[in-house]
Amino acid sequence: MDPVTPKRPYDAYEYESSACSIARTLEQIGDRWALLILRDVANGVRRFDQLADHLGVARNVLSRRLAALTEFGVVTRVAYRDEGSRERQEYRLTDAGHELIPILLAFMGWGDRHLAGPEGPPAYPVHARCGAPVRVSITCEAGHDLGDRPHLHLEPGPGSRVRAGAPGGRA
Amino acid sequence: MDPVTPKRPYDAYEYESSACSIARTLEQIGDRWALLILRDVANGVRRFDQLADHLGVARNVLSRRLAALTEFGVVTRVAYRDEGSRERQEYRLTDAGHELIPILLAFMGWGDRHLAGPEGPPAYPVHARCGAPVRVSITCEAGHDLGDRPHLHLEPGPGSRVRAGAPGGRA
Repeated sequence: MDPVTPKRPYDAYEYESSACSIARTLEQIGDRWALLILRDVANGVRRFDQLADHLGVARNVLSRRLAALTEFGVVTRVAYRDEGSRERQEYRLTDAGHELIPILLAFMGWGDRHLAGPEGPPAYPVHARCGAPVRVSITCEAGHDLGDRPHLHLEPGPGSRVRAGAPGGRA
Repeated sequence: MDPVTPKRPYDAYEYESSACSIARTLEQIGDRWALLILRDVANGVRRFDQLADHLGVARNVLSRRLAALTEFGVVTRVAYRDEGSRERQEYRLTDAGHELIPILLAFMGWGDRHLAGPEGPPAYPVHARCGAPVRVSITCEAGHDLGDRPHLHLEPGPGSRVRAGAPGGRA
């Protein structure tokens, strides 16, 4: 299927909300604690006690969220042992978890622009290899940078599902 | 302040979790309904009844979430009148709301890669002007594309706050 040549205009209301990739991702990590845990693990806060302390989250909530994120496959447990202590577990991003970083950066960029206050951004993300500041950009395959307020259309993809009761729907 | 030349290495555990731009943004829109409402409004599902129907959300929940998003300044009410009906309100993204689209696209891209299933993505975002497929990319000011699993460091920004009780913290 050629995504650029739609058979008909996309009308979001005709399509099943739950078949959307945004909805499916939010179903798994669409809450504040999940995303803050992922942020902390990405930033090197990886041990249970440190996460509980840094996030100020109840230990039972943290435990449940970490178990869910582990089962979902975005974090994994890795054993470590401090000298003189028993073996413990810390949490790391998996490859799939690492691919969530653009989501976190998009939240960060928006917050930096709109919520940072007069003192300025709390942190700068930089490219680990060259040290240059990093940004999220929306680009198209024709080479355009769509800027901070991108103008998009959606085209129905092969996995779209038209809602049974939708006005104008085929089903 | 030069963000590229840190005074000291960034240790996320030393910094206040709540002073982070990710945390501040999640505080306002970090739940599944808020982000799904923003998705729908961005995609042209703008009327209360359509939103309630499309999202399958309870009307009192939708009403509270729309009021919060309006107060937060990312959606705004616009009057419309269907022929023969009284004036009603629909919801549109504000400029600040429009700048949330990269967050939604980042969720969409991740879901397309990891949760779409064998049938493929449910929808393709394309550039409204040229029709070419769109993607979220992480780039640095030195011109590098950091790919799907970007390697980043954080540098403390002017708005960072060291935690009072942090090990190694200055306060």
